[in-house]
Amino acid sequence: MKILVVGATGTIGKAAADELATDHEVIRVGHTRGDYQVDLTRDDSVEALFAQVGRVDAIVVAFGGVHFGFLNEMSADDFNVGLQNKLLAQVRLVLIGQHYLNDGGSFTLTTGILSEVPIKKGVNAMAVNAGIEGFVKAATTDLGGFRINAVSPTVLTESLGKYGPFFPGFESVDAARVGRAFRRSIEGVQTGQIFKIW
Amino acid sequence: MKILVVGATGTIGKAAADELATDHEVIRVGHTRGDYQVDLTRDDSVEALFAQVGRVDAIVVAFGGVHFGFLNEMSADDFNVGLQNKLLAQVRLVLIGQHYLNDGGSFTLTTGILSEVPIKKGVNAMAVNAGIEGFVKAATTDLGGFRINAVSPTVLTESLGKYGPFFPGFESVDAARVGRAFRRSIEGVQTGQIFKIW
Repeated sequence: MKILVVGATGTIGKAAADELATDHEVIRVGHTRGDYQVDLTRDDSVEALFAQVGRVDAIVVAFGGVHFGFLNEMSADDFNVGLQNKLLAQVRLVLIGQHYLNDGGSFTLTTGILSEVPIKKGVNAMAVNAGIEGFVKAATTDLGGFRINAVSPTVLTESLGKYGPFFPGFESVDAARVGRAFRRSIEGVQTGQIFKIW
Repeated sequence: MKILVVGATGTIGKAAADELATDHEVIRVGHTRGDYQVDLTRDDSVEALFAQVGRVDAIVVAFGGVHFGFLNEMSADDFNVGLQNKLLAQVRLVLIGQHYLNDGGSFTLTTGILSEVPIKKGVNAMAVNAGIEGFVKAATTDLGGFRINAVSPTVLTESLGKYGPFFPGFESVDAARVGRAFRRSIEGVQTGQIFKIW
């Protein structure tokens, strides 16, 4: 399969791309690095990406920025960061990508344990991840023959140095295990699933 | 209690306001009607509202517009309608309202059955409602002494003429029953709950 991995230069996206590259043609897309670049907050940038890469058999997105902070210091603009840079960014790739996906193709989005488990400063992340999961479940009813799933990891072992303090006592998982969940989504038959790696 | 009901001129908000007005001081806020007006998509408008009404004991919001449409015709701008006009609009009222809420106060937001049950053209609604419910659950960990819940009705009997065709075979509920759920949220002790009226 020809598989587009957006966010392939991040820890999760790289794990997905590395897992899939053993037996698929993987196109690695980043924000500033990778085979191609895209800005998922802009329609024209996403359209330009597909104009370059053409039709694909599967689309993976492991990208998204959210706002971390306490509620009593948070503004609506802060909260909108996650809505625009993660929720709408991933949805935009689906809305435009559906017109470039081959028959039988699939989307795999990325959420995370914060969709269900609160952590300190994680309100924006939880709302955003919950919204993505709501989108995935609803989209299954309206995507024609395409499948759509999300991979939801807990904190990665490789990211404990940066994020460990936000996940006190949480068991971490290796990125490679998260990568395999993307293969399960793409090569399996399920749709509307949230593959929880926690 | 002094209770602010934003969206009080809509079917759900009016039911909440009518239920609460029997034994509380209810301030009815609409977009163009009501005792006061507010535009929940703008910080300055929400700040101006609280400058007028002062501190309150409970804040209810039963307002929000989403985009109804099929995925294969939907743009990111369409999808953003629900993010801005419902999800962020309700969150904005909490973010600003927390600074005007008396000790022991509560927020009650409004989602709906579409957070969990897909209907035709309802992808945006489902993502938005799921996001609101994620916000409610996370916010309980970070709102100091305030409580926060959401009321989630199915289609209202009073709205069957307009929305009935989107809910084939669904049992409707009377608006008065939905109104009572707001009382339960405000006068009860629970927090982080989604009161499902379906």
